[in-house]
Amino acid sequence: MAQQPIDTASTQLAVDFAKGHGTENDFVLIPDPDGRLTLTEADVRLLCDRHAGIGGDGVIRVVRRSAETDEQTGVPDVQDAEWFMDYRNADGSVAQMCGNGVRVFARYLQRLGFVDSADLPVITRSGVKLVSFGVDGRITVDMGPAEDLGTSAATVRAFDSKAEYAGRAVSMGNPHLACDLSGEPAAVAGLDLSRAPSYDASFFPEGVNLEFFEQVPGASETDAHVRMRVYERGVGETRSCGTGICAVAYATLANAGKTEGTVIVDVPGGRLLTAVSPATVLLTGPAEIVAEGSTVLLRGR
Amino acid sequence: MAQQPIDTASTQLAVDFAKGHGTENDFVLIPDPDGRLTLTEADVRLLCDRHAGIGGDGVIRVVRRSAETDEQTGVPDVQDAEWFMDYRNADGSVAQMCGNGVRVFARYLQRLGFVDSADLPVITRSGVKLVSFGVDGRITVDMGPAEDLGTSAATVRAFDSKAEYAGRAVSMGNPHLACDLSGEPAAVAGLDLSRAPSYDASFFPEGVNLEFFEQVPGASETDAHVRMRVYERGVGETRSCGTGICAVAYATLANAGKTEGTVIVDVPGGRLLTAVSPATVLLTGPAEIVAEGSTVLLRGR
Repeated sequence: MAQQPIDTASTQLAVDFAKGHGTENDFVLIPDPDGRLTLTEADVRLLCDRHAGIGGDGVIRVVRRSAETDEQTGVPDVQDAEWFMDYRNADGSVAQMCGNGVRVFARYLQRLGFVDSADLPVITRSGVKLVSFGVDGRITVDMGPAEDLGTSAATVRAFDSKAEYAGRAVSMGNPHLACDLSGEPAAVAGLDLSRAPSYDASFFPEGVNLEFFEQVPGASETDAHVRMRVYERGVGETRSCGTGICAVAYATLANAGKTEGTVIVDVPGGRLLTAVSPATVLLTGPAEIVAEGSTVLLRGR
Repeated sequence: MAQQPIDTASTQLAVDFAKGHGTENDFVLIPDPDGRLTLTEADVRLLCDRHAGIGGDGVIRVVRRSAETDEQTGVPDVQDAEWFMDYRNADGSVAQMCGNGVRVFARYLQRLGFVDSADLPVITRSGVKLVSFGVDGRITVDMGPAEDLGTSAATVRAFDSKAEYAGRAVSMGNPHLACDLSGEPAAVAGLDLSRAPSYDASFFPEGVNLEFFEQVPGASETDAHVRMRVYERGVGETRSCGTGICAVAYATLANAGKTEGTVIVDVPGGRLLTAVSPATVLLTGPAEIVAEGSTVLLRGR
């Protein structure tokens, strides 16, 4: 956790970092247990720059709750939770929560020796999330309940054609439209998501995350099994999206007339397991730390 | 330089690494002075994976010449050069040389304390390259001479139009076509290079790197000044390409009837200075190490 100027002439601040990912949703983690570090938007953009910096989908500052004020975390009632996930998007903006990021956050705390039980409450800007360490190395996050918002549609354009897909609108705190393409073989793999699909802006005035999914043949009796791709609001297609996976799991069951069950969800970045009930959605998946070391932040420029 | 198994159950090999870039052409550096490490294609692909690994355009293993056989380096006559730049492309294949990579290689050796003079001969698979450390922090590489191959043309397609640009064919060891777009305002910035431009395959049977450049208004009397973009053979558009910059500098002068001079070249990733003569092209630019630490390679899977 050393943080001292290593070169006052060029005003660089050396800080520790780690890089990790959950189903290829990747993050630069900055350990700051005592809350001594102020990360600027420029810091975050440079850390996430995939060519000029380390590279990541976002930055997670790892800080003890006691080192932050309520105003900073934005979560007044943190119960007995100790650790705050200070998550920023790659563009430097502040973010609420991330279902893949919170697993990586928990893995990193575990690696640092700060976890002494199988459960860890994590403070995020959208509340305290309970994380559980599985015996198989996977990590489960209690993502809260899915809320059914009805039906809408998205249109995907290719060079000389367009196709409209009906979907179920689902809120996981943020808005999703989960479109079931199971009727058409290989429909999900064949979609052109290099450009933004269009949607009903009167239904989703703040934009929407769009998921396209289909049943995987040969699913077991007990678990539903789907594969999906996601076009994230303001980002584009990504390898994985935690809340989108939960929305698809909910929609898979709801489309079959069920309100609870387990769904295996394959995304381009890997495989997750979801357990849906009216009370909440549990999201289980891998979280890996791939590198640790030191980097520099620019100061006084 | 510690390299020991940290977890025999999951067969991971811990290795040191650094990440650095030259005008945003970025590399994962693996220090291996005593040549103890065998990097597989799978290792390189994972290290360069921008989501599941550290991420980079390539991997550079940093190894002493005495630790390698002539067969490994492929450069029998290395004179008194000590250090070999074992460069691999992100897909795991072996690469010859890289004008940005060799500067980053030199910067890293300097940082490790292995450089005790202003010049450093670096062994690459395309021969020994002389690197010089400038007093301003920039690094110069002797890239060897440009060879004029005549004229050809490239065609850039947009949705409903296409434009053909004449260019000068130049070899810097690898083939280039440097197309001067100076006639049209903002022509370089407006090009759609999201898809591969086409070229005369009978002229370039092994493919070609395509550069599009234009004069920057207000250049000084002493230095020419151009901006360019590059579509690299087998890769796509990149932020910078050392040999492409040299080819454009040569073409800028040749198009003005000159065989030598200095040319400032702006690429999307930054600014370089070139000095062209019939004997060689000197390429001067920045090289930065942005992170250092440890990572793991997978073994026995």
